Amino acid sequence: MSTDLILPKGFLSAGVHCGIKPDRKKLDLSLFVSESPCSAAGTFTTNLVCGAPVKVSRARLPRGTIRGVVINSGNANACTGEQGIADACWMTEQIAGLLKCESTDDILVCSTGVIGRFLPREILSKGFPDVVSGLSANAAGYHNAARGMMTTDTFPKQATREATINGHSVRISGAAKGAAMIAPNMATMLSVIMTDAPLTPDQTQSMIRKAVQQSFNCISVDGHMSTSDSVILLANGQVNCGELSDQQLEEIQSLLNEVTSELAQAIIRDAEGATHFITIDVQGTRTREEAYTVAKAVADSPLVKTAIAGGDPNWGRIISAAGYCGVAFEEADLSLKVNGFSLYEKGTPLPFIAAEVSNNIKQNRETTIELTFNSGDASIRFWTSDLTAEYVRLNADYTT
Amino acid sequence: MSTDLILPKGFLSAGVHCGIKPDRKKLDLSLFVSESPCSAAGTFTTNLVCGAPVKVSRARLPRGTIRGVVINSGNANACTGEQGIADACWMTEQIAGLLKCESTDDILVCSTGVIGRFLPREILSKGFPDVVSGLSANAAGYHNAARGMMTTDTFPKQATREATINGHSVRISGAAKGAAMIAPNMATMLSVIMTDAPLTPDQTQSMIRKAVQQSFNCISVDGHMSTSDSVILLANGQVNCGELSDQQLEEIQSLLNEVTSELAQAIIRDAEGATHFITIDVQGTRTREEAYTVAKAVADSPLVKTAIAGGDPNWGRIISAAGYCGVAFEEADLSLKVNGFSLYEKGTPLPFIAAEVSNNIKQNRETTIELTFNSGDASIRFWTSDLTAEYVRLNADYTT
Repeated sequence: MSTDLILPKGFLSAGVHCGIKPDRKKLDLSLFVSESPCSAAGTFTTNLVCGAPVKVSRARLPRGTIRGVVINSGNANACTGEQGIADACWMTEQIAGLLKCESTDDILVCSTGVIGRFLPREILSKGFPDVVSGLSANAAGYHNAARGMMTTDTFPKQATREATINGHSVRISGAAKGAAMIAPNMATMLSVIMTDAPLTPDQTQSMIRKAVQQSFNCISVDGHMSTSDSVILLANGQVNCGELSDQQLEEIQSLLNEVTSELAQAIIRDAEGATHFITIDVQGTRTREEAYTVAKAVADSPLVKTAIAGGDPNWGRIISAAGYCGVAFEEADLSLKVNGFSLYEKGTPLPFIAAEVSNNIKQNRETTIELTFNSGDASIRFWTSDLTAEYVRLNADYTT
Repeated sequence: MSTDLILPKGFLSAGVHCGIKPDRKKLDLSLFVSESPCSAAGTFTTNLVCGAPVKVSRARLPRGTIRGVVINSGNANACTGEQGIADACWMTEQIAGLLKCESTDDILVCSTGVIGRFLPREILSKGFPDVVSGLSANAAGYHNAARGMMTTDTFPKQATREATINGHSVRISGAAKGAAMIAPNMATMLSVIMTDAPLTPDQTQSMIRKAVQQSFNCISVDGHMSTSDSVILLANGQVNCGELSDQQLEEIQSLLNEVTSELAQAIIRDAEGATHFITIDVQGTRTREEAYTVAKAVADSPLVKTAIAGGDPNWGRIISAAGYCGVAFEEADLSLKVNGFSLYEKGTPLPFIAAEVSNNIKQNRETTIELTFNSGDASIRFWTSDLTAEYVRLNADYTT
């Protein structure tokens, strides 16, 4: 398993500053390109109010002839009506022209940033030739592409996995962005994942759905689902390892799960203002959905999030969040551990030394919350961040 | 309409410091009593994990012979298993004994404070005779009773209304507490409401449900539903204004709605760390439930709450919250005003001077958000608070 930031075979990428962001040091236009047509699929936000690029890209997928994805940051092109749709299509036309694609529909588009402003076409026009001429297969180009997607992110998010299939080395690389407005649901934040494995459009569709289900759909920063969430998987088949057996497809799925999981966790590690990375393990529910509902209620409670921020072992906030989420259970069946300390067991509070648990939370950036029910065998792992005064400061002062 | 803090006829109240809270200046034990038996009904939290007092009081209502409500603050007696139930019953036994009630079941009990600690019986035992001997019909006793319910509240919450019915003056007075863990649902925070009108138990039940629906159920501080939410209506019939006509019952309902609405708004005005009181008006939806769902999603979004805190007219956060709440609508039908400024109309962003809207938000403690759909005639008014660094500070340091 390699974690070098090297692209799969036949992929190029670039990121430049074109001027949507005023700060010239910040990149705001990225391009991911395959030298040959790709099988591609995506998952997108289920927010009814979705960005124009989501509407445009979603309509083009799954597809067997995708050549690339153009992404701007600093402007989400969401809540922009008919003009927004025209602007998103125009972006793909411009890139398709420069790359000499057979069809405009072979280019996908994503935008992220402030909602409700029209895209500045003049600024983007100047950036397109730059980003195309900057395309490269090396790590620096890939790193810039990941930077060009960033908004309030403090670091670019990339992950790579490699496996040998029928004697051929197959690679999956992905980039993602996101630090707030993170509460994906059957969807996710912006992420482009590339592989040189030979997959059909249907296979990319099924694989990305499964991978997103256990990664991007299991994170929340603030419970606010974005209008722009998009994950796109591109498979260009440049490594010709023959027809894939079910077992080999499983192997690729498993690598893809690792890449998406690493990217999803990186988003939480970069959560705005966060001082704790919180893993919530829920087990013993009837279904995975029940476990998910409990985990998300705990993750989205500002009272749980602030307690962890302050190292406060106020575990009643966790139990009460489970209680209001709508999942049926017996209070007498429920147990809770925080950072390995048993605080509540089968419906009864346990004695514990508050200072000891508090210090343990304060001294570790990683926090684990384990909720155990007794209704079945289902479970889930969910990741979230704490809520700090710095999150409030960052978000009280975003556009003005 | 009188807003003097005077109790209805035949009611007494008191609040004392018994020692659950370490600070001797803070009251932590309250008692509301009627000289004669009351019709009484309540609405309680729908959290599956509910406090022992909720279980005990809920089982006794509606009832025609209630004599009083005993309330302690500083300890919620929630997540305390069988011992918690025994402790809650014991509290009502002690008070019933001191008041010489015919049955222990004629006393109701509420507890609010930290979750997961057993009640200190020894401390409470000393407080019971004090609070009973302190009972009085005057404003000072009532004020102390409202203070004895407080946790992180910064002021006691009381409301009174008066009407003349068949020549008799009828009064409704209520007290409430709450400043965080506020997201009632078919339920509410602690509130005791008293009237000297002659109502049957069934009438109190139907009236309190209706009143709560448009008041306590329309507020949210942090989206975290408490384990202890309880609203109790006591009607002792000491003003004998004869049998009530439907129109007179309507009049009483309307007064009760005003009292609960004033108390619910007072909770939001005292929301932890808040610098803005936000009114969300949603109109033009198919049903009231749709309007409620939209309003609650907007109210509970940390991104909307922090934007208001910072005077940031980042209206895309409001529209996108409406988009993910699950209510179906056409984006092209939606319009938004903030503090009267039209920012988004029928799916299209309007030009506006950001500094002007920002200053307007910053200079007014009251913020209004108006979301207008075009799907029907239903509407709702919902109240919430902004999210500040002070809320985080208060909640990161609650038990430790």
